[in-house]
Amino acid sequence: MKYRSKLNIIADILKAAENGSKKTRIMYLANLSYRLLEKYLVKVIKADLLRHNGEVYELTEKGRIFLEKFRDYSEKVSRIRKEVEIIKFEKQVLEQMCEIA
Amino acid sequence: MKYRSKLNIIADILKAAENGSKKTRIMYLANLSYRLLEKYLVKVIKADLLRHNGEVYELTEKGRIFLEKFRDYSEKVSRIRKEVEIIKFEKQVLEQMCEIA
Repeated sequence: MKYRSKLNIIADILKAAENGSKKTRIMYLANLSYRLLEKYLVKVIKADLLRHNGEVYELTEKGRIFLEKFRDYSEKVSRIRKEVEIIKFEKQVLEQMCEIA
Repeated sequence: MKYRSKLNIIADILKAAENGSKKTRIMYLANLSYRLLEKYLVKVIKADLLRHNGEVYELTEKGRIFLEKFRDYSEKVSRIRKEVEIIKFEKQVLEQMCEIA
């Protein structure tokens, strides 16, 4: 599995809680150990991205804005990665053109 | 001055010879020492990107195609660099949103 950045883990937790979720559901959807989830829940609640309403965790307004911005960011990252691959190929073509004919 | 890659140096030589140029003019326009220019001229002639017609160096058809492709590549690289800067900033904003409110 690819290593996830902190930002990605937080986004995964918020996505899992987008429509209101209990802890076990978040754990499952965000693919986190109980221990790691506990650590992150403290963090995202302190950051005012998530709140709990009894057993159910739900996004705050700031959490919704974060998720929207994250999705936009994520799409751009994917698009640019593809463009970088294309450019690398174009560079190779140019380098080959510089070889002895 | 920024370090130029071999590809950039070759492109600078071809740009300098685009409308036909003597060696000294190429040296001046491509901003190269005589020694380095000599080394590269051998290379680009062998690669069939440049030919000389008496004292005048001019692009081959392959040289013209190279330059066209290089300009396209170069533009893409600049555009992507700008996009990466924007994305880095968006990432910072997201990271700040994860800090304690």
